[in-house]
Amino acid sequence: MSEFVIPAPQSPTVAVEGTEARFPVRRIYCIGRNYEAHVREMGGTPERSTPIFFAKPADAVVPSGSTIPYPPGTANFHHEIELVVALKGGGADIAPEDAAGLIFGYAVGVDLTRRDLQAASAKAGQPWESSKGFDNSAPIGAIRPAASAGDPQGAIRLTVNGETRQDALLSSLIWKVPEIIAQISSLWTLQPGDLIFTGTPEGVGPLVRGDKVEGQIEGVGSVAFTIG
Amino acid sequence: MSEFVIPAPQSPTVAVEGTEARFPVRRIYCIGRNYEAHVREMGGTPERSTPIFFAKPADAVVPSGSTIPYPPGTANFHHEIELVVALKGGGADIAPEDAAGLIFGYAVGVDLTRRDLQAASAKAGQPWESSKGFDNSAPIGAIRPAASAGDPQGAIRLTVNGETRQDALLSSLIWKVPEIIAQISSLWTLQPGDLIFTGTPEGVGPLVRGDKVEGQIEGVGSVAFTIG
Repeated sequence: MSEFVIPAPQSPTVAVEGTEARFPVRRIYCIGRNYEAHVREMGGTPERSTPIFFAKPADAVVPSGSTIPYPPGTANFHHEIELVVALKGGGADIAPEDAAGLIFGYAVGVDLTRRDLQAASAKAGQPWESSKGFDNSAPIGAIRPAASAGDPQGAIRLTVNGETRQDALLSSLIWKVPEIIAQISSLWTLQPGDLIFTGTPEGVGPLVRGDKVEGQIEGVGSVAFTIG
Repeated sequence: MSEFVIPAPQSPTVAVEGTEARFPVRRIYCIGRNYEAHVREMGGTPERSTPIFFAKPADAVVPSGSTIPYPPGTANFHHEIELVVALKGGGADIAPEDAAGLIFGYAVGVDLTRRDLQAASAKAGQPWESSKGFDNSAPIGAIRPAASAGDPQGAIRLTVNGETRQDALLSSLIWKVPEIIAQISSLWTLQPGDLIFTGTPEGVGPLVRGDKVEGQIEGVGSVAFTIG
């Protein structure tokens, strides 16, 4: 007798700098509209009233170095580089001052987006999963443990075929990392294995087949992939 | 050296009727607005233009018999009974006529909803994860294999403290199960282990602490839980 009635799906993991051991991914939370200039380029007004959260499937993670197939259902497939926080601890109703102790490390991720579907969903008041939570929508580089990454505040940059598209500073996040953790934990119980995409700066734009995408965050690391 | 840098999260599974083996859950897809009378009770107009898909975290599944804590962040926590389809196969761009062969079985699920958050998100054009994809939001009974469940078309009913709240027929689904599978597979590659919540009929309403919720679907099974 087998333990499962069908083969169990493979559990997603992310590489960790300096070790062969992997970070097991439980969930991927994302915050939207978290850099003022990006909120403006999307036609919005920056505000700090209520943060906007969405999610990606845990197995949407793709390792750096991959070729990511151009996804179906879109004609406007966008890059959004983001600082990713990896949690080693969790809880509910976490105070911002307790958040730092829950962080395992940081990575560079790209929140790939089917922008045309997102615009249509937002206009119609419909859910965002088709535009944000699709297959291979979360390329992510190796996680740098917080012990060596510190509290990242430096430059965040993305290039496509060597041309700079996004170039900003982490210090301009509207909701800071401890606040994001606190806010998510008011609605969900965070757990070890959770990843948090912290929002993208201005300069988002379309990707086409053959594009070579590279992202870097100062003091954190990098991610690279090709659109196939 | 351990394989993981932190303990790996437990993989979610669902009971299967007639065996000790479990169904391993990869993802949970959901379709919205799929019964005419429910679309009307939510203030909408039934249509068959484009189906609305959203998701829940795989580990939002809760077994029948559980006590589910009243979730944070809401003052209008709703029940939505649904037929759940469990897949043993998958693919992209699946034709409706090929869908039946991919179905492992069926179960009774409840799409628990923070209705106040959903209404606010829909109005603002913001994502639905806080209202639909929260912890413990997917109670589900044992899966009945398709070999014994056949093609369920009968009654779907939910009671709270013994009082009937939802009572309809599966045959009144706007998008039928093979069509739902085909539509999802145009945007995501389905895989074994995926669950699909197929929408709820009219009669959704609020739950409070202490409520005993029971759901049944003719030919499929049941689910029961208490709000703690």
